[in-house]
Amino acid sequence: MAFSFTVIKKDSSSSARVGRLVTAHGVVETPAFMPVGTQGAVKAVSPRELEEIGCQILLGNTYHLYLRPGVEVVRELGGLHRFMGWERPILTDSGGFQVFSLGAMRKITEDGVRFQSHLDGSSHVLTPESVVEIQEALGSDIAMVLDECIPHPASREYVIASTERTARWAERSLKARSREDQALFAILQGGMYEDLRTECARRMTPLPFDGFAVGGLGVGEAEELLHSMAEFSAALLPEARPRYLMGVGRPEDIIHAVSSGYDLFDCVLPTRNARTGTLFTSAGKMNIKRAEYAKDPRPADESCDCYCCRRFSRAYLRHLYQAGEILASCLLTLHNLRFYHRLMEKLRQAIREGRFETWSKNTQGKMQNAN
Amino acid sequence: MAFSFTVIKKDSSSSARVGRLVTAHGVVETPAFMPVGTQGAVKAVSPRELEEIGCQILLGNTYHLYLRPGVEVVRELGGLHRFMGWERPILTDSGGFQVFSLGAMRKITEDGVRFQSHLDGSSHVLTPESVVEIQEALGSDIAMVLDECIPHPASREYVIASTERTARWAERSLKARSREDQALFAILQGGMYEDLRTECARRMTPLPFDGFAVGGLGVGEAEELLHSMAEFSAALLPEARPRYLMGVGRPEDIIHAVSSGYDLFDCVLPTRNARTGTLFTSAGKMNIKRAEYAKDPRPADESCDCYCCRRFSRAYLRHLYQAGEILASCLLTLHNLRFYHRLMEKLRQAIREGRFETWSKNTQGKMQNAN
Repeated sequence: MAFSFTVIKKDSSSSARVGRLVTAHGVVETPAFMPVGTQGAVKAVSPRELEEIGCQILLGNTYHLYLRPGVEVVRELGGLHRFMGWERPILTDSGGFQVFSLGAMRKITEDGVRFQSHLDGSSHVLTPESVVEIQEALGSDIAMVLDECIPHPASREYVIASTERTARWAERSLKARSREDQALFAILQGGMYEDLRTECARRMTPLPFDGFAVGGLGVGEAEELLHSMAEFSAALLPEARPRYLMGVGRPEDIIHAVSSGYDLFDCVLPTRNARTGTLFTSAGKMNIKRAEYAKDPRPADESCDCYCCRRFSRAYLRHLYQAGEILASCLLTLHNLRFYHRLMEKLRQAIREGRFETWSKNTQGKMQNAN
Repeated sequence: MAFSFTVIKKDSSSSARVGRLVTAHGVVETPAFMPVGTQGAVKAVSPRELEEIGCQILLGNTYHLYLRPGVEVVRELGGLHRFMGWERPILTDSGGFQVFSLGAMRKITEDGVRFQSHLDGSSHVLTPESVVEIQEALGSDIAMVLDECIPHPASREYVIASTERTARWAERSLKARSREDQALFAILQGGMYEDLRTECARRMTPLPFDGFAVGGLGVGEAEELLHSMAEFSAALLPEARPRYLMGVGRPEDIIHAVSSGYDLFDCVLPTRNARTGTLFTSAGKMNIKRAEYAKDPRPADESCDCYCCRRFSRAYLRHLYQAGEILASCLLTLHNLRFYHRLMEKLRQAIREGRFETWSKNTQGKMQNAN
């Protein structure tokens, strides 16, 4: 088994830690952020640009790849890494989140979930076993079990039934795996109920998963509840294995979650916001469309080292956006992803040097002031 | 005056030549192809990618930049080079072609042309003088005079009147120039009438223009007429100054025009075709959308050295295109532009080595076979 996780350094004032994740395609220093490559590509950036901005690992969406181009195509082309020209680690999700987002177009049974494709309405079934099989064919370094991402709010009865099924699915997933070079992570659910999260963890954590994710957060609940439930959930998971907070989130959420002991993150915010003209900067969010930037010769983020900030002015970026140029999406995405990766670099550095508490207060403060 | 043009080597079997164009922002080896950067950006590629694929000079559109972001913005931001992050030479067109494409939305007088913006309907006037002034503010290395691009077919009476006005406008443009670091090119018109082209050249070529363009071709006429009229027009222009065939065209048109003595080219084909999934390759055009490429592991063009061809398969490119990924436009544009630039490199090499005739026959043959 190529996969291992080692905690390198623990923070003294919080549960933050720096770790080292070894996968079949290389090492990931944690805490790490994973850009989302939904359809076999991170929108508007190329693999070499991802390498340039320090991306160590990215996320692929099983649901999208399963529907298009199809698992067989990816397998025949040598697996997802070769297919998309990315040689570093990849984590694939289980497709559960996307399927459950389909609402009326899907039906859950004990066996799995039947759904209709958002592309052509064709019928498909995903089971815990098929989801493992698909991810093994894709050849990702880390696979996720099929789970149900419970919407918020949800009744206690619904959450109990759903979480128990998710736990049973996790057990079936373990039995289905056959690749030794692919890690498998379970997903903790339980809605916003602490006792149900505890019960879910009690069932899953003794099982030989390589890591544990926390799902069902960042689904519309208030910031305080997100932070407290993330913190509560992290404490339920074994210290020796990587913890992955799924789909979260804003820079401030990530900093908070790192202090709760999380190691892995993914979110569409940096890429999606870029395409609507919103930049993350060291002074908070910036809407590049604003008229005040029309003649502003400064880089988007004066402290950023990315190509976009080294070469172009706010005035030019605003012009590209207003003119509908594809290059606007490309450059703004590059910057936002560099911002996230640099944040993680600085955060790891702060933990290593025993100054995470001060660093996180300062960083949060600067971002807040400008918002 | 920073501008100069030197013919380095002449072909013995045709009018093809290799030259050296010196501008305020560096040297251009000719024959050269200029990618079109309509709105201050070549669509879907960044300046560093243009540098990478060997782009020596690009074209900016005065009409578009005048309307958005506006000349004052570009001037205040340090000129077009600094604004768009491109340090190599830039040629700007006069805006004439775009204005005349507006049809009912413009009116020509002796003074100039009044038109309505395609963006907001606002009224504007461009005169030979204002067009020089705008391009001086943009700071391009080569400016073009205002001309009327005559549609095809056009009556002899119309072409006579229009071409005479274009010649008078050219004279006014010369008087309006004030920058010593910017070259000014005249534009030969005359429709598809050889005697009117001759008369236009007789009036313009004695004037102290730094180069001469041929306009009004590639506007819907048959291939044979395009080639013969381009050849006829080139012969009317002084050998010692650069010849620029505006807006043309396909690789085979460029090879033919080089043999007629042209030195500069621009065309939207490589960039526009990329965005609709059509690639130029050494074996002819390729429609990446075709089902036959769904599992094809080969690069788009097996003999190409660009990042797109070195890293990605036809199957992946097809998938990106089908999935509507922005990255499809980026990678296909990169390849098409590299194809055009490599064609020009090989073409210059062939002229230098005295084997242009053989090279052009072979190259045309290969492209034809696959079409």
